[in-house]
Amino acid sequence: MKRIDVCLSPDLMHLYTVTDRTIVVVDILRATSCMTTAFAHGIDSIAPFAKLDDCLAMKAKGYYTAGERDGQKVEGFDLGNSPFEYMDEKLKGKKIAFTTTNGTQAIAKSEGAKEIIIGSFLNLSAVTNYLLKSDDNVLVVCAGWKGKVNLEDTLFAGALVELLKEHIEPDCDAPLAAQHLYNQAKNDLVGFLKNSSHVKRLARLNILKDIEFCLTPDQYHVVPVLRDGVLKS
Amino acid sequence: MKRIDVCLSPDLMHLYTVTDRTIVVVDILRATSCMTTAFAHGIDSIAPFAKLDDCLAMKAKGYYTAGERDGQKVEGFDLGNSPFEYMDEKLKGKKIAFTTTNGTQAIAKSEGAKEIIIGSFLNLSAVTNYLLKSDDNVLVVCAGWKGKVNLEDTLFAGALVELLKEHIEPDCDAPLAAQHLYNQAKNDLVGFLKNSSHVKRLARLNILKDIEFCLTPDQYHVVPVLRDGVLKS
Repeated sequence: MKRIDVCLSPDLMHLYTVTDRTIVVVDILRATSCMTTAFAHGIDSIAPFAKLDDCLAMKAKGYYTAGERDGQKVEGFDLGNSPFEYMDEKLKGKKIAFTTTNGTQAIAKSEGAKEIIIGSFLNLSAVTNYLLKSDDNVLVVCAGWKGKVNLEDTLFAGALVELLKEHIEPDCDAPLAAQHLYNQAKNDLVGFLKNSSHVKRLARLNILKDIEFCLTPDQYHVVPVLRDGVLKS
Repeated sequence: MKRIDVCLSPDLMHLYTVTDRTIVVVDILRATSCMTTAFAHGIDSIAPFAKLDDCLAMKAKGYYTAGERDGQKVEGFDLGNSPFEYMDEKLKGKKIAFTTTNGTQAIAKSEGAKEIIIGSFLNLSAVTNYLLKSDDNVLVVCAGWKGKVNLEDTLFAGALVELLKEHIEPDCDAPLAAQHLYNQAKNDLVGFLKNSSHVKRLARLNILKDIEFCLTPDQYHVVPVLRDGVLKS
């Protein structure tokens, strides 16, 4: 039976062997939700960057620059980190260079995996089906917040463990903990997360609409996949 | 209001400032359960060691040597890592040098904290009352398994967050996750943990009696405290 593990923080990546695994990178609020939305609306590709300057430099190469630091849009960038910005018709067929506080760092730390894909509640079933069809073991890498564990990414990891349980076996305790939390939260994700640290942080920035959207399962069928350093779907 | 945070793995200790905090080190299966049991049965002191050789060297100084690697007693040591071994009359007033795969490593990584104490379900209420009386913020450090997050230590952390919730506020998402898990598990800790990785590992070693005992709250009133590198109660 294939196996699934969950890395609850990018700062724990040294504990996992990834060469035989498909990694699902998740940053629900909001990097991987934005990426999923962008591909569902016809973007050509996304180049993820851990460093802000590397991302900004792509502007000269015709890329839209996008992302945030500490939850806020970066000065000089074309786009921020709200999924609603990525529904714009003008982005169809365009290339985006993307950097965020946590999500693109988690992608960078996943280097060496057999395959890297992007997960969010918005494409939950699509990711589930993708993993079912693959022969590889799975590692869900939660982006967290500056190394600390967060609830929303853990809940998404738990959703995958739960949905795959008949076919893919949990490796260790982190997937079990995530699964328990998801089963407790699944009927009201927004309510369950209302006291979580990042929801509070984003609520101060007045983006509750983003939060509710990012916690809505199965809006899109795309599965962004990283190939040669670039995400395509 | 005082604050409580939870470090789910010793490999995440770099994320926490500990100089103003009382750290509660927890390794339910079985290091901190053994330590609690030993003090409740009249041991004089426990010197914790991260390295096996450092621990073994204490034999020449008249210490009982104790602990495990990978769940099994170390060759040449006087005592293993079952709490029942620490109920022996002959240990009264004696000094123990202790090393384990995870628990004593977590103590070593907690260096620099304002205070370090030892927690287990066996002394849950005693630790709760100790933290209520202190003016310090709290960090629960879960020993985990070789850096990976485990359920039993997370549940203990969640028990503290739950029992202290009227008086000490959670800092971040890790304490909330632990609290949710504890509330889900509290009526049947043994049942909740039956699929966890370490319980399975220990079940193979035929020590289910240890597991049930280590998950029993409030057997003892002692609170071991680290002072000058030595635990006393």
